[in-house]
Amino acid sequence: MFAIRSPFAVASLAISATLFSIPATAQFAKPDDAVKYRQSSMFVMSNHMGRLGAMARGDRPFDAAAAQYSARVVETLSRAAWDGFAKGADSKRAKSEIWSSDADFKAQQDKLMAETGKLVEAAAGLDTLKRQAGAVGAACKSCHDKFRND
Amino acid sequence: MFAIRSPFAVASLAISATLFSIPATAQFAKPDDAVKYRQSSMFVMSNHMGRLGAMARGDRPFDAAAAQYSARVVETLSRAAWDGFAKGADSKRAKSEIWSSDADFKAQQDKLMAETGKLVEAAAGLDTLKRQAGAVGAACKSCHDKFRND
Repeated sequence: MFAIRSPFAVASLAISATLFSIPATAQFAKPDDAVKYRQSSMFVMSNHMGRLGAMARGDRPFDAAAAQYSARVVETLSRAAWDGFAKGADSKRAKSEIWSSDADFKAQQDKLMAETGKLVEAAAGLDTLKRQAGAVGAACKSCHDKFRND
Repeated sequence: MFAIRSPFAVASLAISATLFSIPATAQFAKPDDAVKYRQSSMFVMSNHMGRLGAMARGDRPFDAAAAQYSARVVETLSRAAWDGFAKGADSKRAKSEIWSSDADFKAQQDKLMAETGKLVEAAAGLDTLKRQAGAVGAACKSCHDKFRND
């Protein structure tokens, strides 16, 4: 179902959003909404990484269209989730280092987005999916190890 | 932050996912996960519709890049959310008609996806954003009125 039917969609690929220049808190009525937003984004992203992982491991038959659909969801949410890490929106899972290590946290985000940016194309074939899903998973883990409480 | 940097990304626009042919329950370990998945998708989508609405109403300055970023999130999640409506995954908000009105529910989904498919391009300009955000919002409301408890 991830068909982009609009003939104009291609033009939008060059979007370079400037949202990070807007205080993230401006998006949320209260800190809990920011927490819910990022956890919701992560949950949906994780579900689709699970689908990709199942195909990569052979637990589910490889289906390029389904894989690319999931890859697109992961790519999109890997860009959107960060808005939810608004200062003051603490949670049990978020280590306090998130709020004191801006550059490190941003580097982890950039790494993930670089890897998810290659995921849709990689998902066209099983071998490339295996490799790239691994790279995305490693980027997830690297950030979770550093910034998330288990 | 919604820059798709891969030169291969364009090819993926033609994806026509076949996910609906896979039983949706296969994606979830338990019914509650399906509920959480769809509610998470809806929450993130709603947040970005809120951002677009704020610009459309003039409550926030119009920013084409930010609007197109939010439009892309809405478009993507408007395609992904449906997987969560797995039979047996009931919730307080979901009216029972969802499970007994497949064709109607599917028609509502198709209407929303048709409208969100035009949203990224429309978000390039304020007048077109106003019109298309209105059309998307109407599709949201139509389905909520019919299938969601308040």
